Amino acid sequence: MNEERTEIGSLGEFGLIEHLTRNNETRQASTILSVGDDAAVIDQFGKQTLISTELLVEGVHFDLMYTPLKHLGYKSVVAAISDICGMNATPTHITVSIAISNRFSIEALDDLYNGIYAACEVYNIDLIGGDTTSAGKGLIISVTAVGEVTPDKFITRSGAQKGDLICVTGDLGAAYLGLQLLEREKKIFLEHPGVQPDLDNRKYVIGRTLRPEARVDIVEWLATQEITPTAMMDITDGLSSELFHICKQSNVGCVIYEDKIPFHDEMREVAYKFEIDPTACALSGGDDYELLFTVNQEEYDKIRFTEKISVVGYITEAGEGKKMITRKGNTHDLVAQGWQQDK
Amino acid sequence: MNEERTEIGSLGEFGLIEHLTRNNETRQASTILSVGDDAAVIDQFGKQTLISTELLVEGVHFDLMYTPLKHLGYKSVVAAISDICGMNATPTHITVSIAISNRFSIEALDDLYNGIYAACEVYNIDLIGGDTTSAGKGLIISVTAVGEVTPDKFITRSGAQKGDLICVTGDLGAAYLGLQLLEREKKIFLEHPGVQPDLDNRKYVIGRTLRPEARVDIVEWLATQEITPTAMMDITDGLSSELFHICKQSNVGCVIYEDKIPFHDEMREVAYKFEIDPTACALSGGDDYELLFTVNQEEYDKIRFTEKISVVGYITEAGEGKKMITRKGNTHDLVAQGWQQDK
Repeated sequence: MNEERTEIGSLGEFGLIEHLTRNNETRQASTILSVGDDAAVIDQFGKQTLISTELLVEGVHFDLMYTPLKHLGYKSVVAAISDICGMNATPTHITVSIAISNRFSIEALDDLYNGIYAACEVYNIDLIGGDTTSAGKGLIISVTAVGEVTPDKFITRSGAQKGDLICVTGDLGAAYLGLQLLEREKKIFLEHPGVQPDLDNRKYVIGRTLRPEARVDIVEWLATQEITPTAMMDITDGLSSELFHICKQSNVGCVIYEDKIPFHDEMREVAYKFEIDPTACALSGGDDYELLFTVNQEEYDKIRFTEKISVVGYITEAGEGKKMITRKGNTHDLVAQGWQQDK
Repeated sequence: MNEERTEIGSLGEFGLIEHLTRNNETRQASTILSVGDDAAVIDQFGKQTLISTELLVEGVHFDLMYTPLKHLGYKSVVAAISDICGMNATPTHITVSIAISNRFSIEALDDLYNGIYAACEVYNIDLIGGDTTSAGKGLIISVTAVGEVTPDKFITRSGAQKGDLICVTGDLGAAYLGLQLLEREKKIFLEHPGVQPDLDNRKYVIGRTLRPEARVDIVEWLATQEITPTAMMDITDGLSSELFHICKQSNVGCVIYEDKIPFHDEMREVAYKFEIDPTACALSGGDDYELLFTVNQEEYDKIRFTEKISVVGYITEAGEGKKMITRKGNTHDLVAQGWQQDK
């Protein structure tokens, strides 16, 4: 992080916006007018436009004690565009609004925006506007993502059919454990400020919580494979909660197999040390930003050989409920816990 | 306001979203998918899409002691769509995200959303999504507005030319005085809780601050009159600050006449009682949500007879600066004060 400190008041609101957007680049040919006027203008001829929005509040969604501002900026963008990916669409633009107390310096905001710009570069999207305001306390970030899709090719949560395969991307539960690890280190630090945490062998789980990625690559891969999911969404509140959404909106039930849920080795190791069941982390932990989708069984041969995607179960009739078959072969009801966990 | 109190926690996040959007109607044929999935989908074939966003923070942008939540919901939408009008475009959709502490009940949120829905009805726009999260303290509202315009017909701040007429809609400065009035009554109430304010003869100025309107009607009127402004924006930080934006981005100067600035009679009266110069309120007060635009002199005959629009001055070369000619015939430099006033 930058060590200088310039007070925000020294720039004024418009000076601040100019400062924060001085290196803003446009990458999308559809960006007709970007930051600096009342509104941005996007050309979307021949495509459908998607809009999604995320609000991140200090003390609720992030703790600046262990979240570098650059990572926070990056993650805020990922959180917003992941919803566009969850529609099987391509993110193209974002707006970012922030409310900040004068506790933050210009250098701190630069770090935040450097993370935002880094995400724009990685995901080939344009920052096209926003709002900047003061706040009595804390930091609030609102990101709206705009995406595009070929007409009527977006995928909702409501198309899952009996017999469809349930697929998840990447691995699950690591972000939740990364957060537990950081919370533990914070507690130790607050009690014993001299102790330096050694998290070198925990890079994966911590990276998953501090600097997640949105699965734009999966949207592209599905297109190249000509696979059209029947239902789709991103996984931000845990697999169980997301399956509840798909089952409710598709009016179906589901069966998943505990031994098919994908875990990272480091995640298993940390779960073991914390004495937390890895399955519980995947089902109820948050912030994975992986994708959950259902496909017709005919697609199985296209999906089975890619390491990016795991088939974890199948769709049943609504009356059969939402079930998990454990490693030992027992059948449990799935429980949705996204909100209760107060992520 | 509703007198029941239901705790937000009793519904859970998804229950809360369902509750708040249970009466949501769609009015725009272009709304293909609305609230309830990862993102909303809008069809914008043959039009350009505009995106603008506003962040409103309790204690900075509003004081709930004198702001009814229904009005706040309405005003939040107005603030966002006014930016679309400022591009000479038509607002079509909004997303609304809120962060709330558990100080608020479901009934309080219903009031807020009733105001949001009222604005959607008045302005014929669709609420298509959002995010709802908890906040440690206070209320934060983020509104993103989406609009549409015939390709390349949007008007930026950068097209003003020497000799163009400077036009403003409605009247200016009343919202600022309404706010001063409410602040004074709050102070009196805090010192003498028994005293009831009598604001019956102050309905106009108070209405301007609590329940402003966006000038969608002007965008429509300009189209029917076939008037194409050369530069345009909405007036939210005071006329002076907005003229600075247009002069900077168009690389021009300006002259305005103090006696042409439009005031409402009640506003003049309140200004007199507060011993505040009405001109200062118009130049530096905020939240008017009127439109400022420049037109070629050839349009004068179309504009002179409408009461909706006042011609307040003309555009000069950049080197001539930004001037106001006072009622007494003196020439002053304009000063931009939007931010410093901490509105």
